[in-house]
Amino acid sequence: MSWIEDPEFTPEHPFGPQTLPYGVLGTASGPTVAVRVGRHAVPLRGIADEFGPRLSELVGAPNLDPLLAAGRPAWDELRERLLGLVHADRAPAGAELLRTDWHTQLLPFTVSDFVDFYSSRHHAENVGRIFRREAEPLLPNWTHLPVAYHGRSGTVAVSGTDIPRPSGQRRVSGDPTPVFGPTRRLDFEAEVGFVCGGEPTEQVSPDEFTEHVFGVVLVNDWSARDVQAWEYQPLGPFLAKSFATSISGWITPVEALEHARVPTTGYDHELQDYLVEKQPWGLDLRMEVRCNDTLLSTPPFREMYWSPAQQLAHMTVNGSPVRAGDLFASGTVSGPEVGQRGCLLELTWGGADPVTLADGEQRTFLQDGDRVLLSATAPGEDGSVVGFGDVAGTILPAVRR
Amino acid sequence: MSWIEDPEFTPEHPFGPQTLPYGVLGTASGPTVAVRVGRHAVPLRGIADEFGPRLSELVGAPNLDPLLAAGRPAWDELRERLLGLVHADRAPAGAELLRTDWHTQLLPFTVSDFVDFYSSRHHAENVGRIFRREAEPLLPNWTHLPVAYHGRSGTVAVSGTDIPRPSGQRRVSGDPTPVFGPTRRLDFEAEVGFVCGGEPTEQVSPDEFTEHVFGVVLVNDWSARDVQAWEYQPLGPFLAKSFATSISGWITPVEALEHARVPTTGYDHELQDYLVEKQPWGLDLRMEVRCNDTLLSTPPFREMYWSPAQQLAHMTVNGSPVRAGDLFASGTVSGPEVGQRGCLLELTWGGADPVTLADGEQRTFLQDGDRVLLSATAPGEDGSVVGFGDVAGTILPAVRR
Repeated sequence: MSWIEDPEFTPEHPFGPQTLPYGVLGTASGPTVAVRVGRHAVPLRGIADEFGPRLSELVGAPNLDPLLAAGRPAWDELRERLLGLVHADRAPAGAELLRTDWHTQLLPFTVSDFVDFYSSRHHAENVGRIFRREAEPLLPNWTHLPVAYHGRSGTVAVSGTDIPRPSGQRRVSGDPTPVFGPTRRLDFEAEVGFVCGGEPTEQVSPDEFTEHVFGVVLVNDWSARDVQAWEYQPLGPFLAKSFATSISGWITPVEALEHARVPTTGYDHELQDYLVEKQPWGLDLRMEVRCNDTLLSTPPFREMYWSPAQQLAHMTVNGSPVRAGDLFASGTVSGPEVGQRGCLLELTWGGADPVTLADGEQRTFLQDGDRVLLSATAPGEDGSVVGFGDVAGTILPAVRR
Repeated sequence: MSWIEDPEFTPEHPFGPQTLPYGVLGTASGPTVAVRVGRHAVPLRGIADEFGPRLSELVGAPNLDPLLAAGRPAWDELRERLLGLVHADRAPAGAELLRTDWHTQLLPFTVSDFVDFYSSRHHAENVGRIFRREAEPLLPNWTHLPVAYHGRSGTVAVSGTDIPRPSGQRRVSGDPTPVFGPTRRLDFEAEVGFVCGGEPTEQVSPDEFTEHVFGVVLVNDWSARDVQAWEYQPLGPFLAKSFATSISGWITPVEALEHARVPTTGYDHELQDYLVEKQPWGLDLRMEVRCNDTLLSTPPFREMYWSPAQQLAHMTVNGSPVRAGDLFASGTVSGPEVGQRGCLLELTWGGADPVTLADGEQRTFLQDGDRVLLSATAPGEDGSVVGFGDVAGTILPAVRR
């Protein structure tokens, strides 16, 4: 019997001992790296000595940057020691249990580069149909490579951060001159993100995925659809996305996902060698998207066309090294069914078909005060459930300096 | 008469006392912030006490990050003190003069986010004609907003860094299936970059430009045109650009450019308020592009449609703060004449019309071993010449792990 007395620290709950995600909590004595156990978190600073001299320095830091830089051997050793500690009968000296809902979560690491993919075929086809009505929904390159773009690392924010409505240029139907003002088509995008670490490395093969990926977060890639439609050609989305990207405060280690791995399938063509994965890196994350507590969608991550290992291989094949702190996200996760679409653009078909919330209100796009919540689980060993950190964000009215 | 005995430390030379650019040199005792004076550089660490306690800490750092974070008041004070020091009769205690050609230049700051604009109308029209033959060369948004995308901050490299030829997917004419391999259309792009600092600030107006921009570098945004043509729709360039971006090791302070400011003109429409500049921030940089010592082009920066102050205003208008270490670049600088085009794509019209080098060899795109050199000057006070750090890079053969 473990010293951790928490009714949710069991394999049936998402944050049982099978998960053990890392995060950073604000405490009276400053930010501390912590591991989540059920409803609680154990700050690692207080029990750093349990991990030996090398690891204790890493987990004693105010964020996860040093641990991310340390790479896979350190990540494996830390997880092994943590598994031993949480299963022990007695608490290690200096151990504390903090209530997660009583402490502020901080952005757990410094984001180096942020890359956002576009790897759900259902999403890409839906967006193609909505934005480019006359054309083929999928461009010819899409089935040959994981399309992606760089996002803004400086506006990646931790779950719970409020999101002021951004302003920008948009075009009003029928008028060739754009107007400027708060976006009228503010949207979420339900995505899955991968946090990288280890030595800078280029040309990472799909089978080297675990050497460079520390863990998994959920991502809400907030999007201003009217700004995006006006600005995105020919160089891609810019201000429509750069105002904010929310991520989980808890990072679920890749090691916890061994039983969630599924093959990606259904390729239209033979793949280039560098994109072929010998071991499957599709992941069976079952996501839920809520707006003001109404369940809007249940996007299935296992439906993605390109796996995160293929994404990492593509991102680095041109000689760009992956660095500690790099974050790459999947792109909006959408399944084949209407109730599996990962953004309002798709759920309302470009605003034509509003969704109805539990209180009877309707939404085409987000209103000020709306709260969007992403959550997910994945299958663990022996029927256990692996959890991911929620991503919550509330829309604030537009601000003008 | 100054203690700095250097034949090029005079107003007629680009690195006379009117310029005083900052950089970081590798020395036997580690990296040091330095100021360039003619052919020499003065390490600031050795004379840090001359600047008072606050500034001495900033200039004693191993790179410019703390100085960038300190903001405009510190930048003004430092320049004032430097101007006093370089004009003094006697060397301050601890002063050294290092030969710039004997010391390695290091990347002078940590790049936070890298944004690349597309603000030369001549360039955008030429590229539109080459890439989208059937369509209008300029998309409707181009004259209303400074089009831009985020680049990869992790592969920004200092002048002198060799550039291995990147590999990627490209399509061979007539075959719908792409092939993978080293790019056959490796190009340079001659650009001007702006290095930001101060407190994170959003909605920066064009008239607040100097509060947030520390100085100016030249930028070579290396581009793999065949990779770009295949990948860039709909989310913009990714691997075609992310393998490397070279910047000057010397950063010319904005204060040195007072006499180079020119109005931007020729707008097709009335501008949105947030893009209107009361003071002109066009800049009269005269650039030169060389390949293997042959002068290929003389791009005129004064011809840009959007000024850097308008670019910064656009970049931040949606609530994204500019941060210390942010780098934004102009996009390829091209003038109206053929000999003013800032990349081979334009100079050779998509490879149709090769350029001839001094040795009689022809180029459509870059070959392994080619060395590209960007340089520039701008007018200073009383006929003096303000200099910018060169950007040099040599192409190495493709590498495969």
